[in-house]
Formats: sequence, C-alpha cells, structure tokens
Amino acid sequence: MSYFRQTRSSRPALILGGCVLVVLFYFFLGPTTDLSHTLDPLLRARKSAAAAANPLSPPTSAFRKSAAGDSQKPLGPPPIVHYQLNNLSSTANPAKNNEKVLILTPLARFFEGYWDNLAALSYPHEHISIGFIIPKTKEGNEATKSLQEAVSKHQAGPLDKRFESIIILRQDFEPAILSQNEKERHAMANQAARRAGMAKARNSLLFTTISPTTSWILWLDGDIVETPNSLIEDMASFDKPIIVPNCFQRYTDDDGKESIRPYDYNSWRDSDTAQELATKMSQDEILLEGYAEMPTYRTLMAMLAETTENRDKKRLMPLDGVGGTALMVKAEVHRDGAMFPPFAFYHLIETEGFAKMARRLGYESWGLPNYFVYHYNE
Amino acid sequence: MSYFRQTRSSRPALILGGCVLVVLFYFFLGPTTDLSHTLDPLLRARKSAAAAANPLSPPTSAFRKSAAGDSQKPLGPPPIVHYQLNNLSSTANPAKNNEKVLILTPLARFFEGYWDNLAALSYPHEHISIGFIIPKTKEGNEATKSLQEAVSKHQAGPLDKRFESIIILRQDFEPAILSQNEKERHAMANQAARRAGMAKARNSLLFTTISPTTSWILWLDGDIVETPNSLIEDMASFDKPIIVPNCFQRYTDDDGKESIRPYDYNSWRDSDTAQELATKMSQDEILLEGYAEMPTYRTLMAMLAETTENRDKKRLMPLDGVGGTALMVKAEVHRDGAMFPPFAFYHLIETEGFAKMARRLGYESWGLPNYFVYHYNE
Repeated sequence: MSYFRQTRSSRPALILGGCVLVVLFYFFLGPTTDLSHTLDPLLRARKSAAAAANPLSPPTSAFRKSAAGDSQKPLGPPPIVHYQLNNLSSTANPAKNNEKVLILTPLARFFEGYWDNLAALSYPHEHISIGFIIPKTKEGNEATKSLQEAVSKHQAGPLDKRFESIIILRQDFEPAILSQNEKERHAMANQAARRAGMAKARNSLLFTTISPTTSWILWLDGDIVETPNSLIEDMASFDKPIIVPNCFQRYTDDDGKESIRPYDYNSWRDSDTAQELATKMSQDEILLEGYAEMPTYRTLMAMLAETTENRDKKRLMPLDGVGGTALMVKAEVHRDGAMFPPFAFYHLIETEGFAKMARRLGYESWGLPNYFVYHYNE
Repeated sequence: MSYFRQTRSSRPALILGGCVLVVLFYFFLGPTTDLSHTLDPLLRARKSAAAAANPLSPPTSAFRKSAAGDSQKPLGPPPIVHYQLNNLSSTANPAKNNEKVLILTPLARFFEGYWDNLAALSYPHEHISIGFIIPKTKEGNEATKSLQEAVSKHQAGPLDKRFESIIILRQDFEPAILSQNEKERHAMANQAARRAGMAKARNSLLFTTISPTTSWILWLDGDIVETPNSLIEDMASFDKPIIVPNCFQRYTDDDGKESIRPYDYNSWRDSDTAQELATKMSQDEILLEGYAEMPTYRTLMAMLAETTENRDKKRLMPLDGVGGTALMVKAEVHRDGAMFPPFAFYHLIETEGFAKMARRLGYESWGLPNYFVYHYNE
C-alpha cells in the first residue's frame, strides 16, 4: 500500500479529519450500452425494488436520482421509511442471503490491474459497494482521474456487472514522510508515522461509508492486482469474524524464471520474545514486523505458505496480528467499535492494532497461509 | 442514562452488532400543517437545493422520496454526484458556516421533557440530524412507539422547526444486568458490564450515522430533560474538539425547597492516586468514579460548580475523563478513530475511555463546570 509517498508541506494535525472531498458515482439504474442485458427483467426489477426502498440510503447504498422536473410537481405527503434489518446476517454463504459487501480501498496510485481484478469478482455486483479514500495531492488527483474513468466506463457497461454504488473520499492529511523512495518508505523509523496516517485514512473511510445494511467489509489495498475471482465467497465460507489471505508478489528470479515471494509480513502469531520486547517499551513505542533491527520471533503467516499446486488452500491458522492488503471483516466487528488505532495500542498500530482491539471485543482473527493474493511489483 | 434496565434472556455476544433494525423518518419536503410557514420561499428553496444535491445521502442526510409513478418513466442517463467538502469545517460559529450537527441519543425510555427540550433548541433545525439507538426489548418497543409519535407530530409541524432527518436504530443486545432497580444499576460490580454494553451501543450508532457532511456530533442522553436552548451554539463557541457541560439534577430538598445537585461524576481531572491504582490493576480492570469503595481523589467537575446566579458560565477547565450525558465533539475526532472502548482502555471504559483515546489522537477534552444541563429525576 503506497499511500504516503507524495511530497507536501506540513499541515496542522487538527485539520486532518475535517478536510474531506467526496465524489459519488451513481449508475445504478442508468441505461446500458449492452442492450442484451436490459432484457433481464428479474435483475432489473430486483434493482429497482432495492432502490425504491432506500430513499435515505447511506452513501454506499443505491438510490435512483429523481428525474429533472420532479421538483415542479406538487409535494406529496411526508414519507416514512422503515428498515427491517433484524435479519441482517454475515454467513458462510453470503450470496444466498443477499448479504451486502462493502469493499474499502485506500488508494494512492491507480493500477489497471487492481480495477480489472475487482471488476472480475464473481460475487453478485448488485450487492457490492466500493469506497475509496484518496489523498488530496498531485498524485492523488491523477489517481482520482484514472479511477473515475475506469468507474464511468464500468458502470455504463452491462447491468449485471455494475456495482451497487461507489463513493470516493478525498482527504487532506499531513504527509508522514517526504521521500518517494520505496526503501525509505519502509525504513523502520518512518513506519510508525506512516502507519498512523494509514490508520486515520482507514478510519475516516470506514466511519463515513459503513451503512445499516452492510454485512461484510472487504479491505483491499489499491496495489492488490490479482486475487481469485471468488475471493469474497471463499473468505466468507469460513464464517470467521476476521480472515486474511496470504499476500504474495510475482517476480522474475535471477535465472529469469517467473516466481512468487511473500510480500505482507503483518499477519502473525505472537511470540514470547515479542511480548517481552513490549514490556520494556515506553507507552508510545510500537513493535514492527519484518525488520532485522527488531527480531520478534513471531510466527509469520508469510513464511508458512506451501507453494505446490495441490496444496490445501483451505488450511486455517489463528492469528494475533493481521495485514490489511486484503482483509475480510464481519460488519459487527467494526460496529462494536473495532477500528485501526493510529496510536500504540498494546504496542501495536493500524491493522495489527485492529486485530488486538477486535480480540479485546471478543473476536478472533484467522489466516489462510495457502490462499494467495498478489501485490503489484514496483 | 438508563439503557440497560430491561430483563432479557442471554444471547451470544457475537450477534450483538449484527441485529439492527433501522427506522427512518423523512419529512424534509413534506407538506406543512402551518400554512404561514410555507410562505418562506428562501428556506424552502434552500432545503430543496440541499435535498436535490444528495441522492446518495447517508441515513442522516436529506433526500426527497420520488413521487409514486416515477418508476414508470423512462430511465434517464446515469447521474454522477460530486460532494465538494474541502470546506467542511467545525468552527466557533457553526450556524454562520451552515455546519451540520448530528445529535446522537441512546434511548431506553422516552421522556417528553427530552423531546420538548430538543425541539426548542435554537440552532437551525435544517442543519440538525438526529440518530437514536433503542434496545429490542419490551421497554424499547414502548420507547420507540412514543418517540415515533413525537417525531411524526413534530416533523409535520412548521417547516422551519423540522429537523433535517431522523434515524432510529433498533439493536438486539446482551442485557448487562437483570435488575430494574436504580440502586443495583449503579452497583459498582455491575458497572463494567453495563458500560461496555453502552459503549457498543454508542459505537453502532456512531459508525452507522456519521456522514461525510457532519461537522459536529452532540451526544445527548435520553434522560437529559433540560438544557439552555442555545446548547449547540454555546458549546461550539469555545471551538474545542471535545467539550462537556456539567450534568446536574433538580430535586426537592428536606425542607421542601427546590434545589439542584450534581448527577454525572464522569467528567474529571486525573489524580496521582488514580494513576497509582491503575498500575496495580490487571489488564481488564477498570477505574470507576463515584464509589466509596474506590477513592480516586480525582478532581471532579461535578464538585467544582458554582451555583450562584451571576456565576461565570464560560469558565473552562481541562478534563482527562468525560461523561456522555451531554458531550459535544468535532466530527474529525471520531473520523480519526476515537470511539467508546467497550473494554478497559488504560483502565478506562466508555466515555471516559473515549477521552483517553482522543487524547492519544492528539485531541484535548474540556469542561464547563458552571454551565448546567439537567438529568431526569427518577
């Protein structure tokens, strides 16, 4: 996730949360350029019914904009709208139960591969809303432009491929580090500030987009360019409150052969060494994974992957920390209060702190060491 | 706040967040029974413009429901909606800047006094949205019914008195304690569980209702029956990220004279004694205020009030813990991630834990010892 690589002058921290620009796309009941798809009367009726029932829908729910000229008509009686959501569920078979999935993506650069992968997801698109948060910077402006083009094209396409709704938030923020260099971005000293910024971005996105009808949240970073099409169904099938696949990266090895290697080291089982390190830390210090300077001897999911073709992709392991490149969460976990701590929480921050906070709320995290998603290779 | 007094059989904790019933009232552009008010073309035009711009508005924003029959019309081109919110502010003069205020109320019983006080608030109602969360219990059903009646009546009244929107969430939850008795409700042993439940209710309400346009959140408990009409303007005028008035209670003293006494003891400055107590506690234990068994020697705002008529109502004091009976918060504090910890956070829970969490995010809490709001006297 390359969220904080842009150069900017510093701003007071207090304006961070307030400066938000929201762009909403809504194509839910618009015309289609592929006429064969307008012939599915069932889907059309279903979408129409869903929209009609939600005049006060949250940003990530669907609603049909009134046709121009409606405002000239005499005003009707005040409507009362009831949401009967007692049956809101998050189950192992979400499509069967028409469960709404909210995909949330902090975006710094736009990758075609990210969008193409998203567009190919097999979960019914009519039940998928997508929320983006993009920094108000030059790079962010470019990403927004590319994203808008991709969204416009997609949402004007076949009706059954269109997503329920898409929301784009633009957020002003204090840049954590000024270098665009990948090495510096990962330098340990920069990590705390960078990940605190990421955590605030995730929180702003989450608080603003989650709706009363959301059953699942899929956190998916903007540089994840390849997942199985059945990612949502696969993750949900384990019926866990929090579950993460293993984030790998494709690369060409020294012999010129295509290969894969681990990318995200933030999904782990805790160790006594790490616990002991934490006891010696001051309140504000955080434990970081993947740095030689701070050996934690945690059990890293990244290192437990089998790469053979016939590996058991359903192998599960319990986790104490999770990464956020791809992260599936039942909405009730967030609604109970689990967010991404931008401060040291039990000496953990951002997604790793989230797993700890969820644990304090009674929710366990799980990992799929043999189920891969792929990060862009810069 | 009497949120957890109902008797219920126990339920698995995991279903807490998921079982939500939402009822939405929307009267924004409906007809008025007071015809003199329909003659304010400016207000009407302003409301109409606001509504037209928000087809994908969150539950607490306004949108006019399409007139029946619209669905028969040919579908127009897919609309694209842009929110330009870079100027979103939370300032000392919110009305001048058209800042949106979201009032959030966890409600267990409906008090006429609460609603009448709310309806009399002088802040422009067109900029006020209100969110309620009510437990799915017999008592909660009664409260919902009474609330719906009050809302229906109010929102059919004069146009300039109507609130922008009102959302009611019904939440199933695990009852923390089974006794309806006030004494038991406050018994120290019950407090941790009761306040964890309250915290989860507040989080569900907050996550589901906060919108991209919200500038301020006013937490106002359902048993607050009297505040100055200018409560919102007064609190905002101090331009603090978090600010609380002093919560008192009217009563008749032994001589039969009308008097007032402190009610909420959760707003305080920390003490060395409390800090020392905390160091000896296990991870899950919490510090509680107002119990003889646990003398904290904190400086309680409740005890610092002057009650003379010519007292300085603008007297400010810094706080380390805040109560939630009335609590004004800039939206950016919540968006950055500050919520109500339902677990021990630095040995603090719920609103007191919120103040600590906000502090970790860089936001300070302030109190107004001489500015009173009044709790219902049971």
